[in-house]
Amino acid sequence: FGKIKATALNLAKKTKEVGQDDPRRIIHSLKVGLALTLVSFFYYVRPLYNGFGSSGMWAVMTVVVVFEFTVGATLSKCMNRGFATLLAGALGVGVNHLGDLVGDRGEPVILGLFVFVLAAASTYTRFFPHVKARYDYGVLIFILTFSLVSISGYRVEQILELAHQRLSTILLGGAICIIISIFVCPVWAGQDLHNLVATNLDLLSNFLEGFGSEYFRVSRDGNSMMGPKEVKSLINGYKGVLNARSTEESLANFAWWEPGHGSFLFCHPWKQYLEIGGLTRQCAYHIEALSAYLNYEIQAPLEFQRKIQEPCMKMSLESGKALKELALAIKTFSQPSSVDEHLESSKSAVDELKTVLKAVSRKEDDLFKMIPSLTVSS
Amino acid sequence: FGKIKATALNLAKKTKEVGQDDPRRIIHSLKVGLALTLVSFFYYVRPLYNGFGSSGMWAVMTVVVVFEFTVGATLSKCMNRGFATLLAGALGVGVNHLGDLVGDRGEPVILGLFVFVLAAASTYTRFFPHVKARYDYGVLIFILTFSLVSISGYRVEQILELAHQRLSTILLGGAICIIISIFVCPVWAGQDLHNLVATNLDLLSNFLEGFGSEYFRVSRDGNSMMGPKEVKSLINGYKGVLNARSTEESLANFAWWEPGHGSFLFCHPWKQYLEIGGLTRQCAYHIEALSAYLNYEIQAPLEFQRKIQEPCMKMSLESGKALKELALAIKTFSQPSSVDEHLESSKSAVDELKTVLKAVSRKEDDLFKMIPSLTVSS
Repeated sequence: FGKIKATALNLAKKTKEVGQDDPRRIIHSLKVGLALTLVSFFYYVRPLYNGFGSSGMWAVMTVVVVFEFTVGATLSKCMNRGFATLLAGALGVGVNHLGDLVGDRGEPVILGLFVFVLAAASTYTRFFPHVKARYDYGVLIFILTFSLVSISGYRVEQILELAHQRLSTILLGGAICIIISIFVCPVWAGQDLHNLVATNLDLLSNFLEGFGSEYFRVSRDGNSMMGPKEVKSLINGYKGVLNARSTEESLANFAWWEPGHGSFLFCHPWKQYLEIGGLTRQCAYHIEALSAYLNYEIQAPLEFQRKIQEPCMKMSLESGKALKELALAIKTFSQPSSVDEHLESSKSAVDELKTVLKAVSRKEDDLFKMIPSLTVSS
Repeated sequence: FGKIKATALNLAKKTKEVGQDDPRRIIHSLKVGLALTLVSFFYYVRPLYNGFGSSGMWAVMTVVVVFEFTVGATLSKCMNRGFATLLAGALGVGVNHLGDLVGDRGEPVILGLFVFVLAAASTYTRFFPHVKARYDYGVLIFILTFSLVSISGYRVEQILELAHQRLSTILLGGAICIIISIFVCPVWAGQDLHNLVATNLDLLSNFLEGFGSEYFRVSRDGNSMMGPKEVKSLINGYKGVLNARSTEESLANFAWWEPGHGSFLFCHPWKQYLEIGGLTRQCAYHIEALSAYLNYEIQAPLEFQRKIQEPCMKMSLESGKALKELALAIKTFSQPSSVDEHLESSKSAVDELKTVLKAVSRKEDDLFKMIPSLTVSS
């Protein structure tokens, strides 16, 4: 009994965490519930029922399958489903007609052949990277609808009416989804992508700003100014950046489907976010290599350390400030004003460092390498 | 007209490339076609038709939606679909019964309420990372089936028979998918994961083995022994490793569903592949930082370079050999035999290097940092 209680408590905690991580998740769940309840009314209310028949279930199905977290994802699925159904339906009717011409004997053979060829070909197109990214769901629905229409056409004679019914219910379901997802607390994939890219830059800059002082303090007297918890959050803060690529790509794909909203116009250059994201990651790789030094005992002589400390810290701090400036510029759609300044002073710190040392140095190289990637990302 | 021809040629080229990248894709497409054609026979042949009724379309649907590239993915979807349908169907019948008890007036309200609450709750659980990774599709089908059964139950009186029909057709479709995907040229997610992890290690080791000589030759006389194409493939070979995480994770999830096959037992420790993958990526980040030096002009004095050249090259070569040994060990399920040897000689090269230089050094630190991660990944 105690075990069950512990499990339940654990579950409740997790549930709360998921909600706290992103409160929009709770709203999204309620939205799905709302859309489904709305659609089911078309099933309950009698006059409507007569209009739509038992294919009202296609509306329910559409809502369940199509409703996604972001507006872009929902739109993408709706469009894919709609067009694929239309295209496959028309093709299916055509093939069916062809089967009728051949006669009762040849019909199953012809139909079977068509289903085989089209299913294999469509499945193959799903391996194309471009199709996979944007039209995967559409191809799936295409295969599904084509098989259903061409096969069931063999039995059901009123195929055109059936197709009409099905299409109108799918349109109904899709419309409800789109309306709810756009007008009730919308979650824009574009906005998310925008924030994600800016936040990632911010995380890197936090690391750089903290790195200099942390590195030298730890190595000098063994304990750091920040608590171990802060150090940990400093180190782990940017870790997510390393693996952000797939999230960024799917968000950019969804954003492509979204209409203009807020400060984003219809043809917002989403691809450039991916480029910035790529550069950010490039930068994060260098930082990852750099961060290994934080846990590392250093045998360099104290005197030498003291010499390089000031320029190193300045360099790291100024690079961090430059990144923060860039993040802010992205967030507010403005021209970054003082980035060049920070980069300049960072570079001058590098020069300073170079003159200070002809002795063994431990880390200037890495940071020096980062400056180009920093410059590029502006 | 010329433009159309160019597009067609381009498309044909792309089609060929996708097939050459992985010939199993072609086989997979044919398998899907086969499964669909098989299932559609149940629709054509009259005696069977009488048995399954128009719910034969559910079999078609199941095949289209459930058939995935790897065995694990197909099994995962089949299981999810089967259990979710069963559970949701039972719940739906129960709620329907409850609705009947309340009477004609209250029924729509009760049903609507249940649909709303269950849909919202289930949608919310899809945000749990564990559920998302393994049962996402099941939850979707659960919402779908529950809504369909509880709503349509309001109209269709013979709900139990309908549920029975639907379940048996889904089982039929699922069985066909599972049989074809396991027995006709199976693609095992586990095998893929295994190969991927080993290949990634291999790519890193290629880089390390080539890096030493490439670095010193480029910097000394400006042109390299390898052609620029080879250098490029050396540099880009490991890039894929940086972003392999999501692929590895989904493969591991699918592999979890697979029965024992070949050299893999049922409880193969798939999670450890993820750990190795993580360490490999850690290593790749360091290499990424290292590779920046390849494009970089070096101002270090020639004499100094010559001094560090030998130990550096040895270090890089030996680390590479150690990694290659590990990759081979994973591939062949054997104990790595000479890894420690290579690591020892790599470490001794590091020591050598340390004694050689008290002067400015440019890269020993990075490589030195990599040794621990190498050791761990054994």
